Amino acid sequence: MNELDLLKGLKDIFQIRNNVALGIGDDCAAIEYDNKHLMLLASDQLISGVHFPDDTPPEKAAAKLLKRNLSDIAAMGGSPQHALLNLAVNAYDGQWIRCFFQGLEACAREYNVCVCGGDLASLKHNSNMNKNTLVASLTITGIVDKKNLCLRSAARAGDLLCVTGTLGDSFSSGKHLDFTPRLSEGHFLAGTFTHCMIDISDGLLLDASRLAEASNLDIELSCADIPLNNCTLAQALGDGEDYELLFAVSEEKFPVLKAQWPFDIPLSRIGVFHTKRGAESCVYDAADYKALLDKFDGGYIHR
Amino acid sequence: MNELDLLKGLKDIFQIRNNVALGIGDDCAAIEYDNKHLMLLASDQLISGVHFPDDTPPEKAAAKLLKRNLSDIAAMGGSPQHALLNLAVNAYDGQWIRCFFQGLEACAREYNVCVCGGDLASLKHNSNMNKNTLVASLTITGIVDKKNLCLRSAARAGDLLCVTGTLGDSFSSGKHLDFTPRLSEGHFLAGTFTHCMIDISDGLLLDASRLAEASNLDIELSCADIPLNNCTLAQALGDGEDYELLFAVSEEKFPVLKAQWPFDIPLSRIGVFHTKRGAESCVYDAADYKALLDKFDGGYIHR
Repeated sequence: MNELDLLKGLKDIFQIRNNVALGIGDDCAAIEYDNKHLMLLASDQLISGVHFPDDTPPEKAAAKLLKRNLSDIAAMGGSPQHALLNLAVNAYDGQWIRCFFQGLEACAREYNVCVCGGDLASLKHNSNMNKNTLVASLTITGIVDKKNLCLRSAARAGDLLCVTGTLGDSFSSGKHLDFTPRLSEGHFLAGTFTHCMIDISDGLLLDASRLAEASNLDIELSCADIPLNNCTLAQALGDGEDYELLFAVSEEKFPVLKAQWPFDIPLSRIGVFHTKRGAESCVYDAADYKALLDKFDGGYIHR
Repeated sequence: MNELDLLKGLKDIFQIRNNVALGIGDDCAAIEYDNKHLMLLASDQLISGVHFPDDTPPEKAAAKLLKRNLSDIAAMGGSPQHALLNLAVNAYDGQWIRCFFQGLEACAREYNVCVCGGDLASLKHNSNMNKNTLVASLTITGIVDKKNLCLRSAARAGDLLCVTGTLGDSFSSGKHLDFTPRLSEGHFLAGTFTHCMIDISDGLLLDASRLAEASNLDIELSCADIPLNNCTLAQALGDGEDYELLFAVSEEKFPVLKAQWPFDIPLSRIGVFHTKRGAESCVYDAADYKALLDKFDGGYIHR
């Protein structure tokens, strides 16, 4: 059983109950809140040596953790509200942790999030373990207007696939720490231009395939149109940690969107949704079909 | 800087914003929800080798994680609603993780909680690290009637200190895995008999001192009255992981509570709240003052 299969099985294990409108399988869960709004819930992790190098300033690591979660709220068309932080640490360094907390609060202020709870605990001490070993886990709540809620499953055949910003090489360029979660762009898009959106955390190819699968469609990519972050196409397809928004927009609305786009970052049309050709949804490029599949079959590295 | 000092500093770092009625410093945060209710948010961790031995069945470990969080909801007088799970694992064992998920869902059904999100990630692989190394983090939401909300800070001088069940030796007795979170007891008590409650996770002495400090009072314990879980007094004072409810009740209400107590587990009066004798709140026993302080100064072992 590989990780993707395991994750696909989650929907069968965890049943929806209570006032849950949307359970496992999207960027956030959505809970009935009032007549007009849903509450959003999401949770994500940050692991030393995996999501940030050991010499990363604690303030930047903390901000990354919050911004990863903000990116999930953005992808649903929502606004963030509260956060809870859990930290598990190996050798205890009070000063580092304090700076991590301060960095988290500074970022929380910037995005009007209130950090209101959490836990601090020690890993089982092991002298062979890097003393900086740390697992940070953050849960975020948010709120979204029901009419703006964006789902992975809401694309329609003929919709265009679009993306904000540029993709690839997030790690060595430092973007994975310095990115801006696309909350403003998410608000601008959600409801008005799209109801189908995801943030790119695991790489364009994998996250596009999630839109395709959830919407029961294929996606034909135009690889030549993918906006590169000074990197190769393979990096843009597979690296991940871009924290850009990937979304569907109808062909009629696309020119309006292009004309009205008020942000400094690029907006690119990179593909089209089609009805499925086979039993399984797939993402392909007419010009480079095999290369894409090879890349995809090469395995999924989950950060 | 030790861990307790660091945690005390948290309230200065993290400012309350938005619709947060109660931030860091109680068993749960409380958020304005509607005219009559608050939403509760809490988050807690479970670490292999710290919170459970390596040979613990994954289903039991998962249930413990959820029940730890349910205990926090119980201490506020609330009802649980939703949960999000983050898992960070070392060597990847799909079958173990699947059993962990299934155990979590089984427990969630029992308490009518909906597991609706989370994340699965790998620790930086290290062959020197125990392959079973796992950090699980769970966030819970709940709902509480505003008039029933219980706070650590709501005890008054003259109130009696009471506790459910028996205390101590939770680890070797297996109670730390098999306990029942006191949700029914919490509901019965909250609003009607108390507005001041905490669950005992870090040991009677430390958790009682949290009530004393938050309420700006002293607590005089009657050590002889502490209900022991077939263990020594020191174990009952310091072991922790009891997941019993510790609460304040007025002297007038106590006989009514005793008479009406409908549960099979013991209800014990174990102390009294007094106005402070010194600058700092303290917990003491008239008969055994020094022994208590020695125990307390011996350090705080945070699981």
